[in-house]
Amino acid sequence: MATGKINVSVENIFPLIKKFLYSDHEIFLRELVSNATDATLKLKHLTSIGEAKVEYGNPVIEVKLDKEGKKLHIIDQGIGMTGEEVEKYINQVAFSGAEEFLEKYKDTAKDSGIIGHFGLGFYSAFMVADKVEIITKSFKDEPAVHWTCDGSPEFTLEPSDKTERGTEIILHIAEDSTEFLEERRISELLKKYNKFMPVPIKFGTRTETLPKPEDAPEDYKAEEIEVDNIINNPNPAWTKQPSELNDEDYKAFYHELYPMQFEEPLFNIHLNVDYPFNLTGILYFPKLSADLQVQKDKIQLYQNQVFVTDNVEGIVPEFLTMLKGVIDSPDIPLNVSRSYLQADGAVKKISNYITRKVADKLKSLFTENREDFEKKWNDIKIVLEYGMLSEPKFYEKAGAFALYPTVDEKYFTLEELKENLKENQTDKDGKLVILYASDKDAQHSYIADAKEKGYQVLLLDSPIVSHLIQKLEADNENVTFTRVDADHIDKLIKKDDEQISKLSDEEKEKLKTVLEEIVPKTTYSVQLEAMDSSAAPFRITQPEFMRRMKEMSQSGGGGMFGMGNMPEMYNLVVNTNHELTSNILNSGDKTHQEALVKQALDLAKLSQNLLKGEDLTAFVKRSFELIK
Amino acid sequence: MATGKINVSVENIFPLIKKFLYSDHEIFLRELVSNATDATLKLKHLTSIGEAKVEYGNPVIEVKLDKEGKKLHIIDQGIGMTGEEVEKYINQVAFSGAEEFLEKYKDTAKDSGIIGHFGLGFYSAFMVADKVEIITKSFKDEPAVHWTCDGSPEFTLEPSDKTERGTEIILHIAEDSTEFLEERRISELLKKYNKFMPVPIKFGTRTETLPKPEDAPEDYKAEEIEVDNIINNPNPAWTKQPSELNDEDYKAFYHELYPMQFEEPLFNIHLNVDYPFNLTGILYFPKLSADLQVQKDKIQLYQNQVFVTDNVEGIVPEFLTMLKGVIDSPDIPLNVSRSYLQADGAVKKISNYITRKVADKLKSLFTENREDFEKKWNDIKIVLEYGMLSEPKFYEKAGAFALYPTVDEKYFTLEELKENLKENQTDKDGKLVILYASDKDAQHSYIADAKEKGYQVLLLDSPIVSHLIQKLEADNENVTFTRVDADHIDKLIKKDDEQISKLSDEEKEKLKTVLEEIVPKTTYSVQLEAMDSSAAPFRITQPEFMRRMKEMSQSGGGGMFGMGNMPEMYNLVVNTNHELTSNILNSGDKTHQEALVKQALDLAKLSQNLLKGEDLTAFVKRSFELIK
Repeated sequence: MATGKINVSVENIFPLIKKFLYSDHEIFLRELVSNATDATLKLKHLTSIGEAKVEYGNPVIEVKLDKEGKKLHIIDQGIGMTGEEVEKYINQVAFSGAEEFLEKYKDTAKDSGIIGHFGLGFYSAFMVADKVEIITKSFKDEPAVHWTCDGSPEFTLEPSDKTERGTEIILHIAEDSTEFLEERRISELLKKYNKFMPVPIKFGTRTETLPKPEDAPEDYKAEEIEVDNIINNPNPAWTKQPSELNDEDYKAFYHELYPMQFEEPLFNIHLNVDYPFNLTGILYFPKLSADLQVQKDKIQLYQNQVFVTDNVEGIVPEFLTMLKGVIDSPDIPLNVSRSYLQADGAVKKISNYITRKVADKLKSLFTENREDFEKKWNDIKIVLEYGMLSEPKFYEKAGAFALYPTVDEKYFTLEELKENLKENQTDKDGKLVILYASDKDAQHSYIADAKEKGYQVLLLDSPIVSHLIQKLEADNENVTFTRVDADHIDKLIKKDDEQISKLSDEEKEKLKTVLEEIVPKTTYSVQLEAMDSSAAPFRITQPEFMRRMKEMSQSGGGGMFGMGNMPEMYNLVVNTNHELTSNILNSGDKTHQEALVKQALDLAKLSQNLLKGEDLTAFVKRSFELIK
Repeated sequence: MATGKINVSVENIFPLIKKFLYSDHEIFLRELVSNATDATLKLKHLTSIGEAKVEYGNPVIEVKLDKEGKKLHIIDQGIGMTGEEVEKYINQVAFSGAEEFLEKYKDTAKDSGIIGHFGLGFYSAFMVADKVEIITKSFKDEPAVHWTCDGSPEFTLEPSDKTERGTEIILHIAEDSTEFLEERRISELLKKYNKFMPVPIKFGTRTETLPKPEDAPEDYKAEEIEVDNIINNPNPAWTKQPSELNDEDYKAFYHELYPMQFEEPLFNIHLNVDYPFNLTGILYFPKLSADLQVQKDKIQLYQNQVFVTDNVEGIVPEFLTMLKGVIDSPDIPLNVSRSYLQADGAVKKISNYITRKVADKLKSLFTENREDFEKKWNDIKIVLEYGMLSEPKFYEKAGAFALYPTVDEKYFTLEELKENLKENQTDKDGKLVILYASDKDAQHSYIADAKEKGYQVLLLDSPIVSHLIQKLEADNENVTFTRVDADHIDKLIKKDDEQISKLSDEEKEKLKTVLEEIVPKTTYSVQLEAMDSSAAPFRITQPEFMRRMKEMSQSGGGGMFGMGNMPEMYNLVVNTNHELTSNILNSGDKTHQEALVKQALDLAKLSQNLLKGEDLTAFVKRSFELIK
């Protein structure tokens, strides 16, 4: 048996880095600016503990583009490197500088937020550059050095006359990467990845108009000066304590995060936990609008203020992915598959924590200012209803704040609803019948009938509402939901009092025969009912059960298989006590009788939005004739 | 000045591979099976040119799961490795075996489709395994060897008693990767990445029932045998010549590609080019349905039968991303940013080629079987109309096959339309007026009016149709599109003949005053027109220009800024020659006059889908009264 050492020959490491280090080459800039930030924060830490006897000052990281020279510079005023350190950190690929640093200073460094993997990230420069230079001077009293490498394993190292502390990286951009010589592209990348990094980043300059002095003469000309163009906000809102921020601060940060978003968020949830995992962030409930912006502005995931991704699938519970905002956590493993992420215990805990915080915030919003919460309900209900259906823990907590609005914009919790309706809407079997409409306009006449009886009608118009009420019925014994057009008004909530029919049984039989000859059997089932003489003579209804199953089956996951494609079936409820009904029954003229039934059926169809196309055109023509 | 060699120390290469080689760890299986495939195809090639004097046979790659032992085996019957080759290909990380192989046999190998980067891909095993073994026997007459490495740079190499030719890789799956010990997970990965790889891949066995023999006795019991479970199809349709395939083959392949898709595709386009780039593939026009499946089943990108991604953004023109199917090309650079991809000349050529092939196929479908093409039009029009708007080259070619259907399902090209309509639908200024409807049901009465005049009415119901007709008008002088409810029928296409009004100018003045008192001014502008006495007395119209600009602004990119939010404005066109109009004018009873106008306005609103909610309920109630 032989043993040996695997030999990694350096001729091959560059193509490997170039090809495989990151699938997206643009990442190089994030890595280099991260390194510059780490170098600056390391110096800050060393000065704060007295290890470095230099002035920390107000260091800035500068990104400089030299289009003509085909170069990109990244310059920091951080810790710098001695010749020996370059040898150690740069010439030994994959040597983790940050790790050793942390090892050495681990007690004091733990809370200073220093991460980074200096050395490895640096080599991503070779994804876009065919030659890279480092000019660096350590904070220690040692001469500056100048390192150059053209992507072959050979490098040169020579003294440099750099006098200021810090490191300058010069990238000679390769032919296939000239996009990174465009000012717009670099600006775009800095804004994408470095917008909230903790050290100021300068990219070019901009002109600023000086304020007009108090004693300015009349012909005063506005004075303009060049100032550094700082592209980042080193202290974003989520790194602060909630007590330091007011409503305006949260709103301002929302617009900082999504500059193209003009709507105000409805409210925010500040996340802040450091045990058993580390996570900060701010989530916003947006006003959900129909436009595309909603899709674009997603929750952004950061690690120590460095942008990582806006794909938070698996980390944030699915129903909350419609929210906006940021999450910053060093504890989320990133280089694993999504399925592993979902099974990972730590990630599951994060997801649960977020769910709980959101529920708690909603409860406190509801308790503290119910009126305001009610106003926002219609904008947030889809998210919450979806959460109630998909997350059992959220469902439990939502009982305290989930609202059920009536068509007259009164808002009840389920408990309030039960209390409020029990007297008038309990049927003869002791079931509480909660009436609802899905569309105020389309079901107007049915709603009007119910309101006349003194019933409350809810307006439940979310696309998943059939699934939600199915669940609510299962969890609340003796509560049943019925859409307002599911039956005629006297039967929606069955009580003991019965109307007496003006028609005898023989007359009813005769009437039914007449009607069934004219009304198409495949769609309508004729039902004669003795109702108040002022109630509509013809009414089209659709039984709750069938309709709900169909809806559930169409919106997916529920109902009965195949129900989505069943033809629509309706009941035609005819009020035997209405004058028109008597007229139909007693009309001697067959033609006239048929005309009456057809016109009455068309009117009933109109109320249920069923009269369309050719039938509607014929109806309108007939009706013009009728009044001319 | 000093020079030196960058030193890559091997202690650090494993964490690098583990963390960065691929962001998705599941890729390891694709890499190992690719290596096994390459090893098999290399042997095939060597035997075919007489370099290897062995029997190629019918080699299979076997993937074997040992859940208890926490091991995953990948076994091939390919070229194998001698001890020396293991030293060279495995112990020298990032040594590109395939490259050297190609170099040596470049002339004969060029067309044999051998790719792969043996060596590098192999190390992806360490993303999921903490120990890896290789047991391999070369096709050359040399002893087998057994290599073991636990992720540290130390490896052991010892003789093995393996006698069959080929390589077995054994992965000892690490604690954080136990998902890869699940049969379902491995099966899922094999189906995702290796479904069409060119060597049969066996994963477990399955039972098969033997066919009943002819002379089976009455109590014959079906006999079952275990057979290899081959998970891939080594010869997928796109690797064949179009001449080898018939319609059924294409359909069968569609279902092989998307097993959860039950709809049949409408037609397919076989792509096959090898200069100036290499690309094969089959694209399908699906029946676009509203369900989610559409989003899920995307075009899949392969490289030499290995699945790469289903994100083809930038490679396939955007309007064709709604298609389904496969594209296989080794010429698409993958490890570059999307923006680079879009700027890349070769990729642009591929995208142009696909656009041209699709246009050519559509033209030939149209020419060869127009009837069939017309039947499919409504399922494909959204894609094509979007293409006409977004790709100028496609727009040019589409003139030959883009169809404009009438409400009666006659299909015209634009040229046929011009020819067909010019006699009857040219207005007095010489403009050809093409009438269209967007909804047959909702605009039924307007369509009926137009048809009565002998006009053709197109049915243009795509969401982007306002943009398309705007473009068509710009490119076709003297052609204008007008929706059928944009004006009253006599004015839609202005001719010279004028109707004489039954009413005098004074009567008209009086009528207008009466109407404007009753009809709400904010929404309706009253217009009196002398029309045929049988035309509708009241008609609500909406001018084409305003409506189209609004629609364009709502569907994005076009129209006028801010138009999307303007209130709806209509014209109420009153036929002064209708009997009802005279009755209104001459009614002495103010109340009756108002009732007549209101009922007539409501009927006009019904025809334009404007009567809703409370107004509709009141209308229905009033109408029941009217007939009782």
